[in-house]
Amino acid sequence: MGPRWKGKGAEVKALADPISEIVRQLQSSLICANSRGLLSGTSVLLKADAELTSLLNRACFGRPRVTSEKNEQWFQLSMEEAFYLQYSLKCIKVVDQNDTELNNDVLWKHMTSRKESFPILFKAFSHLRSKNWVVRSGSQYGVDFVAYRHHPALVHSEYAVLVLSAQVGSGRLRVWSDFHCTLRLCGSVAKTLLILDIVPQQSCPTSPSCLDNYVVEEKTITRWSPEQGREKKSLI
Amino acid sequence: MGPRWKGKGAEVKALADPISEIVRQLQSSLICANSRGLLSGTSVLLKADAELTSLLNRACFGRPRVTSEKNEQWFQLSMEEAFYLQYSLKCIKVVDQNDTELNNDVLWKHMTSRKESFPILFKAFSHLRSKNWVVRSGSQYGVDFVAYRHHPALVHSEYAVLVLSAQVGSGRLRVWSDFHCTLRLCGSVAKTLLILDIVPQQSCPTSPSCLDNYVVEEKTITRWSPEQGREKKSLI
Repeated sequence: MGPRWKGKGAEVKALADPISEIVRQLQSSLICANSRGLLSGTSVLLKADAELTSLLNRACFGRPRVTSEKNEQWFQLSMEEAFYLQYSLKCIKVVDQNDTELNNDVLWKHMTSRKESFPILFKAFSHLRSKNWVVRSGSQYGVDFVAYRHHPALVHSEYAVLVLSAQVGSGRLRVWSDFHCTLRLCGSVAKTLLILDIVPQQSCPTSPSCLDNYVVEEKTITRWSPEQGREKKSLI
Repeated sequence: MGPRWKGKGAEVKALADPISEIVRQLQSSLICANSRGLLSGTSVLLKADAELTSLLNRACFGRPRVTSEKNEQWFQLSMEEAFYLQYSLKCIKVVDQNDTELNNDVLWKHMTSRKESFPILFKAFSHLRSKNWVVRSGSQYGVDFVAYRHHPALVHSEYAVLVLSAQVGSGRLRVWSDFHCTLRLCGSVAKTLLILDIVPQQSCPTSPSCLDNYVVEEKTITRWSPEQGREKKSLI
């Protein structure tokens, strides 16, 4: 199943404006503005001026949030997005309520304490983002992420992503009925099920350095119809 | 969500021909014919003449199977269907390859050895069948069963049924993403998710007498849209 572009000219528009370039501009802009994100529970809030708002929207990071102050635009970043901007792209600094900067280790510990599966989810998120996939929450389809070839305004998401790991049980795809349910749903919304199996080479999820020891195994799963390979009706 | 009848007149037709009466006829017919079902792995095969074929089809028990012998019609019953006909309706006798009758205890042990969750699945199946729901496999929707108000030719299935139990872990609905996936799929195929929670009063799944000690808790689950209860957009 290939990408499903939204309307005429979408593919041409996407090719002329690669996500990698938009993310690079976002990175520069965040560094120049010395951007700080405010840790708030399991989200990070980022204040954005007009230019940054445009870049965050185009790169599909965070969700714009309505505030009571008219001239301020805030973006709410997920844990994976915030950690990617701080740790991988080194372009924001996350601070706590006292405006104290949280270094990578402290932030990692906070996020892992809030969500046990954060290390493997982040590995999967950064794996896809580093390949210039646009990655958003997959909760409405009952998966971890959905991955788009370009901005969701131009193309439908191509992959429904489930992140599995023997280390941190995700509780998914243990039984056939779950497989059937997931594949049926993926089929009905025209997405391919992408399983990212995160295999740790050694066990040390206490600091982000463990990410280098994770190997990502990619598998796509599709349904097989027995009729396709059948010459005639079978006999009992 | 009410029943979705298939075309005009389907509801009238269904009301004039209640499933309870069809099953009663099937039961009498099977008793008169002294019917024997042949155990074959996880299925039971039942030979049927023209009258029985019609009744099995109308009552929705088993699947007709094509055979190499022209004048014979066989039906393949699932484990739950076969045990229901032998144990609950007392209208067939299941035999092994040597034509030896398998009593309820022996058949129960065989089925439980083939499928650990057989006791709770059978409890759920018989619970619905005894209320005159037509119950079929839900595998294509990633659930245990689907339940129809009448014959599938007249009405779409109304419930997607998942059978859960603390005793035998079904492995389903342990994590939110599985919930989201299942509810989204149920919504897209216009079914209500019915959870049958089988609560054992005492632990003794070694014989079918344990069925009397199972309590069935019925829950239907639907998605809730936060927008429905919201007066205005929330502020951060």
